[in-house]
Amino acid sequence: MNTTNSKPIGIFDSGIGGLTVFAQIQKLLPLENLIYLGDTARVPYGTKSQSTIERFALEDAHFLLQHDVKLIIAACNTVSALAMPYLKSHIHVPLLGVIEPAAVKACEETSTGRIGVIGTRATVESRAYEKAFSLLSPSANIFSAACPLFVNLVEENWTDEKETYSIAEKYLRPLKDRNIDTLILGCTHYPLLETVIQKIMGDSVRLIDSACSTALALKKILAEENLTGTQSGGSPQFFVTDEPERFQSAGEKFLGKRIPKVQKAALEMEERTFP
Amino acid sequence: MNTTNSKPIGIFDSGIGGLTVFAQIQKLLPLENLIYLGDTARVPYGTKSQSTIERFALEDAHFLLQHDVKLIIAACNTVSALAMPYLKSHIHVPLLGVIEPAAVKACEETSTGRIGVIGTRATVESRAYEKAFSLLSPSANIFSAACPLFVNLVEENWTDEKETYSIAEKYLRPLKDRNIDTLILGCTHYPLLETVIQKIMGDSVRLIDSACSTALALKKILAEENLTGTQSGGSPQFFVTDEPERFQSAGEKFLGKRIPKVQKAALEMEERTFP
Repeated sequence: MNTTNSKPIGIFDSGIGGLTVFAQIQKLLPLENLIYLGDTARVPYGTKSQSTIERFALEDAHFLLQHDVKLIIAACNTVSALAMPYLKSHIHVPLLGVIEPAAVKACEETSTGRIGVIGTRATVESRAYEKAFSLLSPSANIFSAACPLFVNLVEENWTDEKETYSIAEKYLRPLKDRNIDTLILGCTHYPLLETVIQKIMGDSVRLIDSACSTALALKKILAEENLTGTQSGGSPQFFVTDEPERFQSAGEKFLGKRIPKVQKAALEMEERTFP
Repeated sequence: MNTTNSKPIGIFDSGIGGLTVFAQIQKLLPLENLIYLGDTARVPYGTKSQSTIERFALEDAHFLLQHDVKLIIAACNTVSALAMPYLKSHIHVPLLGVIEPAAVKACEETSTGRIGVIGTRATVESRAYEKAFSLLSPSANIFSAACPLFVNLVEENWTDEKETYSIAEKYLRPLKDRNIDTLILGCTHYPLLETVIQKIMGDSVRLIDSACSTALALKKILAEENLTGTQSGGSPQFFVTDEPERFQSAGEKFLGKRIPKVQKAALEMEERTFP
């Protein structure tokens, strides 16, 4: 084992959504040191253009590289769908997104090969999941639907309101009509709506959450690259671009467990500074 | 008249919402040159903290100052509620927000002095409207409610869905129970939900839209400061921080009229640059 193994793993997302990925990694790989960055000042990413998402993602990754991370996880479907080639050409540590792990898992779970994907408008329009499946399982039938209000409903903590059921019914009906047997929750916020989504889709549809499969994919990559950590150096570190207190309280509600100290991150911008 | 009069007026918002203010100004003051900036890469502001809103607002204002504007309008309730003292201490042209004009108008319209205010969470929590009324009409009774999902519903163009009525009913019921006779639409997105809001509140409640009253306040300030323009130099200019095409099509739908060429704005950030 060399010293690289003891370096932290960097995880970033536009906000709190990536904490679902963080939690699964912490559970599966307790000997890794973790640094989490939430770009809460500029959240959400899912309604923005590819060039803006690429720029924000690179600024997030640069911040993590300054903390000497050995690997970076884009714990955000929108970034994973739109910015991976751009990120890969600009950073020089291994990079993992959440799309391929979820697609691999869906291929394992489906019996009929009829798979649904829900996500932000940017993720769905990118057709990133369709591209992933075309390599993994070309015969699969993929049906996707953008559910843009889901993120807002989760952020409002409206996870059991009758309006949430009604909106979910509207978004999910076309997928239900396609007789899918597996549905990828292609946004890190959506696991918080699992009860609503499962109720509408019915018990026969298997829901795939990218958090679990990303943690498993990470474990495999660490082993392959000989980067597995062997000793946790203490508490994970949390950074955000908006106020730490907000993230802490929203994140604790989101995760259902305590988040230690959260620090303010000053990202280095690609644009010019004031004179 | 000096040359300052022919300089443009700068208008900014976090996104397309401020176009309602832009449209009223263009209608009332056709001899003014207008520059509009929408910070679409970082929209929304209404869910973020005061320090972040102040920083973003100053960066927006600096961009307009580089275009040699004679006056700046914060066409965004969130900025007007949270960042005006900060902006005023940093910029040296007259500055106008949308809160005081709406409050003045509400005082003129109310018979009972029972006035409601709806807005983003940041606006409502700032109590900026309450502060404005405490100077204008200390005896008025002000009742406010945050309606965070309204912005998302408007941006999804869900202005007549049954879920929108249901959500609006939930948000507005407490204000209806207070027997208000006047309701300020304290977010530039909300005029797009006027039909829904009016239906729920009933015809006896007068809705106040800050766009109209801000245009009237602007006319007065220009006269007082001897800054009134006398000749329009041509089309207004539109700048955004995310992709121009998106803003153009969303903005045209929002305004119900054609928007000429939209340009990409590169804001100067207060934070450090890449080396």
